[in-house]
Amino acid sequence: MDKPEIIMAPGPTPVPPEVFLAQGSPLVYHRGPGYGDLLREVTESLQRAAHTSNDILIFASSGTGGLESAVANLLSPGDRVVVPVAGFFGERFAKIARAFGADVRTIDYEWGSAVRAEDVGRALDGAPAKAVLMQQSETSTGVIHDVEAVGRVTRDAGVLLVVDVVSSLGAVPYDGDAWGVDVAIGGSQKAFSATPGLSFVSISPAAWEVSRSATNPRFYFDWAAYKKSYDQPSPENPFTPAISLMLGMRAALRRYFDEGPENVLRRHQLLSHATKEGVRALGLDLSGEHPERAWAVTAVRAPEGIDGDELVAKVRADHSIILAPGQGPLKGKVFRIGHLGYYDRFDIIRCLAALELTLDAMGYPVKRGAAVAAAETVFAEAP
Amino acid sequence: MDKPEIIMAPGPTPVPPEVFLAQGSPLVYHRGPGYGDLLREVTESLQRAAHTSNDILIFASSGTGGLESAVANLLSPGDRVVVPVAGFFGERFAKIARAFGADVRTIDYEWGSAVRAEDVGRALDGAPAKAVLMQQSETSTGVIHDVEAVGRVTRDAGVLLVVDVVSSLGAVPYDGDAWGVDVAIGGSQKAFSATPGLSFVSISPAAWEVSRSATNPRFYFDWAAYKKSYDQPSPENPFTPAISLMLGMRAALRRYFDEGPENVLRRHQLLSHATKEGVRALGLDLSGEHPERAWAVTAVRAPEGIDGDELVAKVRADHSIILAPGQGPLKGKVFRIGHLGYYDRFDIIRCLAALELTLDAMGYPVKRGAAVAAAETVFAEAP
Repeated sequence: MDKPEIIMAPGPTPVPPEVFLAQGSPLVYHRGPGYGDLLREVTESLQRAAHTSNDILIFASSGTGGLESAVANLLSPGDRVVVPVAGFFGERFAKIARAFGADVRTIDYEWGSAVRAEDVGRALDGAPAKAVLMQQSETSTGVIHDVEAVGRVTRDAGVLLVVDVVSSLGAVPYDGDAWGVDVAIGGSQKAFSATPGLSFVSISPAAWEVSRSATNPRFYFDWAAYKKSYDQPSPENPFTPAISLMLGMRAALRRYFDEGPENVLRRHQLLSHATKEGVRALGLDLSGEHPERAWAVTAVRAPEGIDGDELVAKVRADHSIILAPGQGPLKGKVFRIGHLGYYDRFDIIRCLAALELTLDAMGYPVKRGAAVAAAETVFAEAP
Repeated sequence: MDKPEIIMAPGPTPVPPEVFLAQGSPLVYHRGPGYGDLLREVTESLQRAAHTSNDILIFASSGTGGLESAVANLLSPGDRVVVPVAGFFGERFAKIARAFGADVRTIDYEWGSAVRAEDVGRALDGAPAKAVLMQQSETSTGVIHDVEAVGRVTRDAGVLLVVDVVSSLGAVPYDGDAWGVDVAIGGSQKAFSATPGLSFVSISPAAWEVSRSATNPRFYFDWAAYKKSYDQPSPENPFTPAISLMLGMRAALRRYFDEGPENVLRRHQLLSHATKEGVRALGLDLSGEHPERAWAVTAVRAPEGIDGDELVAKVRADHSIILAPGQGPLKGKVFRIGHLGYYDRFDIIRCLAALELTLDAMGYPVKRGAAVAAAETVFAEAP
């Protein structure tokens, strides 16, 4: 018998039953008070989750659509932007900006590095820019960048700070307004454990101001059109929304606040720590700077003689657990364990047991139970 | 007791239980053979439904996102397009094209008119264009435009034909390749009765050719990126797809082919005919040219002294049935009954009964049961 595959890649993540039930419930018609209440609850919940009083807009799109909305609404062709690139999603942000004609100045790091605020400051000194586009969590490497520190630099320089928080919001500390983030872009399918297909953006007054004179074309992602529809007495979407996903998102956010944002963070920290201790107990090395901050994704170096892609494929084939392979220059050298979203301690235990079995089967010397024991120790000693 | 509101607006439409169950089922991870099979089944089913061998791409977006994709991928700033405008969605297509810098030549009709192929021919003679952008079903008026006839004109002129089939595909006859449609854009939430949040486009070889030299910026809706991902041995999305909506769409399409496309068309024709006979039996007039073709939406003139918006609001308040108001110049003068999607005969009967009760309560002279009787007669005499 095969149970359904268990996703332990960094998004989409497992989905709690109340989200599935909500997605299977009758549609709330998208014109009128029922949908207005739904939209208001979801946007206000996201404001609370992101610690921001800025406007939040929600799109029926992947997270990438939300990223594009920032580029299309803030920039005109030729505008200069600074993009730190330390992984796949840094590259993606740079590509989107180039597709829209921006003068993109990348700060190029080895994949797995953390972005340094002083590098951003130097880049801005050398070439004044309109915005800095960065990730908080670089999903491809697991690394959490220090948005707070970069925010001090962009504020001093009077430059917009645009942050992809798709795989970080809810999983690691984030304090949008206090850190001076102008635009943050998130997705439904990560720490909130809704299903993929919604992206959302928070937009500061300064970002609104810049958007008014930006000339890049936009229609589906036109912030002003959404804002106008939201500001009606009963908020609406300008285009037919993904109603079922909005119902799922509301259920996911209610769960998030029932558990409590601080508890959700502590859970992510604990599961991340247990995962990393388990991996280390097998003699494996973590990949990426500041692994102690990487509460969303654990990136692990594949041991000598074992290909990371093959390991990921075998864990899936033998144990129906989906890990994520390395990307770009880390392909084959790294594999990734996602633990952001709807996971508990025994999801980690199961994953580590599958890892032990698979490494063993691939000829890597494994002391059976060692990773599980290390994780149990973390759980037993947790406050 | 209130049952949930019943949507009889032209989309989203009621959703069959197997679609809701699919949306409430565990996610299929979006990398690997499971998702590849899902994507392949949905795209091949849509090809069959649209009578086309052209590529089909699917976006996590509203239908409007699909429309934008056509504009962004086919046009460069300054390119001339001809857009017949006979209602709200004609206007929308023109607005999208203008937002992307096109030289938009509208053919302006009174709302409720049908587009005439000879007008399109004349517009193309006067000003050679790159594409004609039009609707098959102008949802705001219920009118079905003659795409086949326009296709003869665009083919003769060597101009791309781009058709919004969002509220028509599956509800009225459509023969993409035979009619020479280069790009058709559809949505999940109409005749197929899935929930909103997916759009899809079919793309002819000629449209692909044009897209290669088009310079408008695109990233999230970049056709080439999707095509490249689809063409892998196991098809994938370039960006995380709306997996739950894809599962719902597969269930909806399986139902569509189980019922049989011809039977689905006959059902839409029958329900449309019964609706219109019921409305006429109350002494009301239909709105829009060629109502006999309007199998997706019935547009009705509000009777003398009764405001259409008030009527729609009262039907919803008193009977939990959601009709659609008139839009633009038809606001207050027209109301609309949607019957595209998951409807049977008794949905029409219920709607007509609610209409009788509401008109009666608003002081319009109603012979109770007259509309229902007329619909029953249509059903009783159906072959």
